[in-house]
Amino acid sequence: MKTLELDTPVLLIDSDALDRNIARMKDMTAAAGVTYRPHAKTHKSAVIAAKQIDAGAVGVCCAKLGEAEVMAAAGIDNILITTAVIGESKIFRLLHALNSVRIAVVADNEDNINMLGRMAQLAGQQLDVIVEVDIGQGRCGVPAGPEAARLAQIIDALPNLNFAGIQGYQGKIQMVEDADMRKADTETGLDKFAATLAEVEKTGLSVPVKTGGGTGTSPFDMERGLLTELQTGSYVFMDSRYGGIGWPGANAPPFEQSLHILTGVVSKPAPDRVIVDAGLKSASSDHGPPVIADVDGRTYEFGGDEHGIIRMTDGGEVPWNVGDKLRLVPSHCDTTVNLYDQYMVVQGDEVIDVWQIDTRGRVQ
Amino acid sequence: MKTLELDTPVLLIDSDALDRNIARMKDMTAAAGVTYRPHAKTHKSAVIAAKQIDAGAVGVCCAKLGEAEVMAAAGIDNILITTAVIGESKIFRLLHALNSVRIAVVADNEDNINMLGRMAQLAGQQLDVIVEVDIGQGRCGVPAGPEAARLAQIIDALPNLNFAGIQGYQGKIQMVEDADMRKADTETGLDKFAATLAEVEKTGLSVPVKTGGGTGTSPFDMERGLLTELQTGSYVFMDSRYGGIGWPGANAPPFEQSLHILTGVVSKPAPDRVIVDAGLKSASSDHGPPVIADVDGRTYEFGGDEHGIIRMTDGGEVPWNVGDKLRLVPSHCDTTVNLYDQYMVVQGDEVIDVWQIDTRGRVQ
Repeated sequence: MKTLELDTPVLLIDSDALDRNIARMKDMTAAAGVTYRPHAKTHKSAVIAAKQIDAGAVGVCCAKLGEAEVMAAAGIDNILITTAVIGESKIFRLLHALNSVRIAVVADNEDNINMLGRMAQLAGQQLDVIVEVDIGQGRCGVPAGPEAARLAQIIDALPNLNFAGIQGYQGKIQMVEDADMRKADTETGLDKFAATLAEVEKTGLSVPVKTGGGTGTSPFDMERGLLTELQTGSYVFMDSRYGGIGWPGANAPPFEQSLHILTGVVSKPAPDRVIVDAGLKSASSDHGPPVIADVDGRTYEFGGDEHGIIRMTDGGEVPWNVGDKLRLVPSHCDTTVNLYDQYMVVQGDEVIDVWQIDTRGRVQ
Repeated sequence: MKTLELDTPVLLIDSDALDRNIARMKDMTAAAGVTYRPHAKTHKSAVIAAKQIDAGAVGVCCAKLGEAEVMAAAGIDNILITTAVIGESKIFRLLHALNSVRIAVVADNEDNINMLGRMAQLAGQQLDVIVEVDIGQGRCGVPAGPEAARLAQIIDALPNLNFAGIQGYQGKIQMVEDADMRKADTETGLDKFAATLAEVEKTGLSVPVKTGGGTGTSPFDMERGLLTELQTGSYVFMDSRYGGIGWPGANAPPFEQSLHILTGVVSKPAPDRVIVDAGLKSASSDHGPPVIADVDGRTYEFGGDEHGIIRMTDGGEVPWNVGDKLRLVPSHCDTTVNLYDQYMVVQGDEVIDVWQIDTRGRVQ
């Protein structure tokens, strides 16, 4: 089947570009001698997770327990859940999933750690727990410094929990456009990470895993050499925001846009605009509107839940007609992927495969 | 099961509030003597569509063919697809769905109409087609005036198409906060609708269906009496934006907030903030952040894909702890619903049912 024969809107993966992105991250981390654990919240696909592990990733990150359950059921081993698992119901689910694959979880709260310890003991299981530290994001995590050491000792003292390491992640600096500024922000965060690490090591505990980082900070994380596991996610797909950031020694990141929305023209009410069938339910808006791929001089604006409006930037006639199809670059890959059930995998103009978006909507 | 025992984040419907909203729209339209066809793009649920039809709705609207297919398979009869169905593949799907239930479709393009006619003839089916007119939205639809009459005649001349009426809808005025301004905008649009109607009627064609309107404009649409079918959608759930609009003769719309996101506190890194487990993948952001239900003095801000950050507006200590659960009011019901697979239906503190969000993600 040809790509242009697909019903729209539909999410496309360029198979070759995806494979090149995965290979590049493998080469970069291998050259830097750092382990990586890609974040599967971006692609939500067990097929892509398996490709990343085949390319040397130690395992994957999942944002939520519900994602980890689905990945575990699909046979993806060695998962880090990067948000805390709170309450008896979810901890029970976690321990159940732990029967089939290795799963570690982060924590930043003493009561939560004690509940994890009690329930793991009741279940007769051993659970790896990583202490989350706030290195600048202002979201979850204990403050950088001695509090992490206190929690690490509590974890270490509980017979069914293993203190496995420290997580410190800053999502908000990943897309700072200027590479030098992003490097400075990365260093500031990693300084806090290092200070926290020193506090934990003072207690005599070893810290096997130091995990964090993302696609944007990855060159600086690798240069510093502090983190043992990079949580890069977006590099597999990229998006218009990530595509616009600077990169040390280059004009652009070394990853290609492999994800597109194919949308169809449903109306041309006047020569100066066409209406396409991808709106707020087909393209996420949290990082702005998607961008038209391949050609300049056209702008997309959201036209409601089910429509987009495309105009020429010079106000002239739009060179598309009803029935034509065109590709959009998402502004935010993670939240756009979460709107779809499937990827259509394409090579050139041919559709070669269909992959499920296995963990779409798994927010619990 | 108690509502507070549910894993979070989860979408809740207050069953009693939903039923009251449905009853109020029934009463309002009955008093005005107008037919209504609620827009099922809001709730995406065959159960709720059936409740609306039980309450006197003539049928439902669907935004996309894919929604109509699912509703038809669930036994919902008499569907209007409010966007054009473009291309052979989709028209084939439309004609297939037409085997089981009545479906009408809108059109604004001559080539599309001719393709609908040819394919309906090949299939030996009769298809109702409604001409879409732009009455101010600036999106799809022919300009108000004689072009609609030309398309109506083309439809009428094709043996397997029936010219069924005119659609004119303005989404962008539905949430104009000031009721007088919204009324004026409604009148301006309906004037264009009436002028178009006159052009079509001049050709000798009758216009059985005049469809449009939404929850925000519904009191003015009913007062004017031009539309024969109101496409109100959001009244079943409401959201923080709709809840804030004025209403003629009252301070607020006569519909209650029946939809909430139940979210859980996953971290309290400092007394002045808690982090909850609902972020961009659990609450849509296109109309801004969700609002905390029931209590004032707290603000929610998005903290990324999987987190929200809640602070007191006065900077004081937040009265929640890790493990607590609280309700959020979505800022936009349609796009928030589209993130979930299920509604948990609650009555008081009890979960009484689970309804599937049948047409979630059906954007094709």
